[in-house]
Amino acid sequence: MKNVQTLIHGKNIIPMDKQEQTLVDFSIAIQDGRILDILPSADAQKNYSCDSSYNYGHHIIIPGLINTHTHAAMSLFRGLANDLPLMEWLQNHVWPAEKKWANDDFVKAGTQLAIAEMLRGGIKFFNDMYFFAETTARVAAEAGIRAHIGMILLDFPTPYAQDPNQYIAKGLAIHDQYKLHPLVKCTFAPHAPYTISNAPLERVAMLANELELPVHIHLHETEDEIAKSLEQYQMRPLQRLHKLDLVNSALIAVHMTQLQEDEIYLLAETKANVVHCPESNLKLASGFCPVQQLIDKNINVALGTDSCASNDDLDMFSEIHTAALLAKGIAQNATALPAYQALRCATINAAVALGIDKETGSLEKGKSADITIIDIDSLEAQPIYDPVGHLVYATQRHQVSDVWVAGKQLLHNGQLKTLDKDEILSQTREWNNKIINSTAVN
Amino acid sequence: MKNVQTLIHGKNIIPMDKQEQTLVDFSIAIQDGRILDILPSADAQKNYSCDSSYNYGHHIIIPGLINTHTHAAMSLFRGLANDLPLMEWLQNHVWPAEKKWANDDFVKAGTQLAIAEMLRGGIKFFNDMYFFAETTARVAAEAGIRAHIGMILLDFPTPYAQDPNQYIAKGLAIHDQYKLHPLVKCTFAPHAPYTISNAPLERVAMLANELELPVHIHLHETEDEIAKSLEQYQMRPLQRLHKLDLVNSALIAVHMTQLQEDEIYLLAETKANVVHCPESNLKLASGFCPVQQLIDKNINVALGTDSCASNDDLDMFSEIHTAALLAKGIAQNATALPAYQALRCATINAAVALGIDKETGSLEKGKSADITIIDIDSLEAQPIYDPVGHLVYATQRHQVSDVWVAGKQLLHNGQLKTLDKDEILSQTREWNNKIINSTAVN
Repeated sequence: MKNVQTLIHGKNIIPMDKQEQTLVDFSIAIQDGRILDILPSADAQKNYSCDSSYNYGHHIIIPGLINTHTHAAMSLFRGLANDLPLMEWLQNHVWPAEKKWANDDFVKAGTQLAIAEMLRGGIKFFNDMYFFAETTARVAAEAGIRAHIGMILLDFPTPYAQDPNQYIAKGLAIHDQYKLHPLVKCTFAPHAPYTISNAPLERVAMLANELELPVHIHLHETEDEIAKSLEQYQMRPLQRLHKLDLVNSALIAVHMTQLQEDEIYLLAETKANVVHCPESNLKLASGFCPVQQLIDKNINVALGTDSCASNDDLDMFSEIHTAALLAKGIAQNATALPAYQALRCATINAAVALGIDKETGSLEKGKSADITIIDIDSLEAQPIYDPVGHLVYATQRHQVSDVWVAGKQLLHNGQLKTLDKDEILSQTREWNNKIINSTAVN
Repeated sequence: MKNVQTLIHGKNIIPMDKQEQTLVDFSIAIQDGRILDILPSADAQKNYSCDSSYNYGHHIIIPGLINTHTHAAMSLFRGLANDLPLMEWLQNHVWPAEKKWANDDFVKAGTQLAIAEMLRGGIKFFNDMYFFAETTARVAAEAGIRAHIGMILLDFPTPYAQDPNQYIAKGLAIHDQYKLHPLVKCTFAPHAPYTISNAPLERVAMLANELELPVHIHLHETEDEIAKSLEQYQMRPLQRLHKLDLVNSALIAVHMTQLQEDEIYLLAETKANVVHCPESNLKLASGFCPVQQLIDKNINVALGTDSCASNDDLDMFSEIHTAALLAKGIAQNATALPAYQALRCATINAAVALGIDKETGSLEKGKSADITIIDIDSLEAQPIYDPVGHLVYATQRHQVSDVWVAGKQLLHNGQLKTLDKDEILSQTREWNNKIINSTAVN
C-alpha cells in the first residue's frame, strides 16, 4: 500500500479526457500537487493510504473551470452602465471611469473581488487583460489561483503607461518576474486592432514568437470595428493581423463575430484559437460568434466571461449554459454545441488555447490537481438523468463546494481558504461608495 | 397610531408601478393579505404598530415573480433528453415518457418539486398547462402559491382523457371547483394549433368568451409548425386562430417566433398577449421572438420558463437575464429590452396577460401582498450601482430569501414554510430511480 498526500473520492467524475467518459465511484490520488492516479474507489482503498481524504459522495467532480477572457479588476465596475452599445459604453462610461479610478489600489481590490467570485464559482484559472498588471499577478499569486496575466498594449496613454514602448517594457518586467512561477504566467495582450497601430503589433509578433508566449487580443468584436478597419487599412482586422504575422496557434482571438467563410478557413489553417464571450456579446449587441461552424472546422473554441462591467458576473456556469443555448439558436439546430462540447470549451479547449494543456484542463494522470467539486444534493438539482447535461443546463455556480489548484484546497464548503472574504467585502463597499459619490462617472 | 398585521421594512423597494421608481428605506404595511400602505420607514414607525415586523436592511424588494408559461409536473423530466430539436424531443422522448409515467402521483410529486423550486427562486405565481390538472390545482392550493391551472385540450387520447369533449369536461369540473378560490384559478389551455382541430378550438373560443377566462396556447413555436399549418389549413397558425375568434385580449400566445409584420400588427390591434420563453426557444432551436419589436408596438410581453424538460430549470431570474441579453442580440441594439422592461415582463406584464393586474403584479396600495425579497449582501452581488440593472444582470435566484403570497410567508430565509423539503427530495429520488431504471425511456 502506497501513501499519498490526498485522496478524493467522487460519486461522478467527468475527467474531460479523450474517452469522454463519466467515472462513477472513482478516486483521485494526489501527490506533490499532481494527479498520481485515477481509479475505482474500491481499488483506491486497497492501493493507497493517505494523509488527508475527502469524500464527495453525492457530487460531480470536474477539472477546474477556466475563464479564458476577463478583465478581473473591472469587477468594481459591475453594472456601472447598462443597456448601451460597445462604443458608447466604452467612450462615455468605462474609459472615463478607468481614467479617474484605475490605479494599483483599484486593481488590487478589484482583482481580489474577482478571484474570490471566480473561486466560489468553480473557476481555477483566468486569462486576464488589464492595466497595472503587476498587481493582478501579485494578487493572483497570493490567492494561489492559476492566472495568465496580459501584458497590455495600447497606442494611447493611460494612467498605467504613456506609449507602446512603455506598455511593452512594463509587461516584459512582469514576465521576467514570473517566468518561473508555477501558476502565474504572462501573455501578450495587445488590446484590439482598433487601438493599436502596425508597428507595436509587429513588435508583439516578433516578441511572442521569440518568447513562445500566447497573444491575447479582442478581435472582430463588432461590425463597426470591421468597417473602420476597412476604411483605415483597406482590410478586415483578421486579415490585417495575418499580414502582421499574428494569426497562428499562439493567437487567442476574443469575440470573433462577423466571420466570413474565408476567415473561418484561415483560422482553421493557422490553428488560431477563438474565445467566445456569449453574454458580453449579447449585452453589447456586438454580434454572434458562429461557434458550431468553428467547431465543425476543428477550430479550438474556449469560453470567457469578459469583464463584470459587460456581463455582469464572472460566472462560467452561466457562460457555458448561455453558450450552449445560443449556439443552437444561431445555428438553428438544437444539436449544436451539445453539453459535452460546451464543457470542453470551459476546460480542455481553454487549456489548449492558453498553451498549457499538458499541465491542466483535464483530470488525467500526471496533470496538475486542479479540481472543482459540485454539490448536486439540492432540491433544484433533482432529478438527474445525465451528469454532463445536468452540469450545463441545470447547475448554478453556488452549488460549487470545493476548488483545488495544484493539489491545494482554495475553497472548502464554499469558504475561501486563501482570501479574506470580509476584508474583500469591506474594501469593495468603500470603492462602491467612492465611485457612486463621484459625479464624474454619472 | 394604527395597528396592522405585518410591517415590512426594505432598503430598496422596486414596486414596478407606473412611476418606475425605486423607494429607499420604505415600509409596506399589510392587513388581511393586502397592501394597506407603502411609505417611508420613518413615517411607518410613527403611523403604524404591528403584530409582526420584518427588517430587510440590505435587501431588494420586488413584487413576486410570475412564471407565465410552464408545465410544472414535468420537473420530474428535468434534463431527460438534451440537444434535440422540438419534434424529435417530443415524439421520441417526452411523449413516450409521459405515456408511460404521467398519472396523478407523477403530477403530485412533479408539481410539488416545481412549486418548491419556484418559491425558493422568488416565483409566487405560475401559469400551468398539463394533464391531471385537478392534482396541480390541489397541490398549488395546499402550498399557498398563486396558480392559473390550464384546462388542457388535445385531439388525441392520453392517459388523462380520451377525446376533446372529455378534456374540456375535466377542465370545466376543475374550474367549477376553484372558481371562488382566492389564489387558484383556471384558464383554457388548448395545447397548440397543430394538435387540435377546428371544432374543439371553436368551442374553446365560445366558452372562454362566456366564462371570461384567458386562453393559454403554444403558438408559432417553430418554422415547422407554420409550414404544416400552411399545408393543412392554407394559412398560418395565428391567422387560423384569428378566424376561429381566438385572437383577442384573452389570448396568452406562448413562444411567437417567426412573426411577420402583419402578424405583429394583428397582435397589437387585438391586444393579444405574448409569452416569451427565451431559454426553451434557444435550447430547442425553435426560433426567435422579436421582443423589442413587439414592445415598440405596445404589445404586452410576459416571460415563462416553459417546462424543466426544455430549460432545465424554473428560474425566472435566469429567464429575465437571458431575455434581456437575447433581445439585444436579436435586435442588434444594446438598448433593446432594458433592465426595467425585462423586469416588467416577469411582474406587471405577466399579471396583465393573466388578467389579474388589478390584484397583483406590482406593489401598490390595495393589491395583494405578493412580495419577493432578495438578499444582496453576498460577495458576488458587490458593488451595486443601480438596483434594477443589478437584479436583471447580476442576481441569481439563490439570493432570494423570502416570499410572501397574499400576506402569508411561504419562504423564510430560504426555508419553505408550506412544503416539506425532505419529503419532496425523497419522492423525487424515487421517481428519478424509477424512470432511469426503465428501458422504455432510454
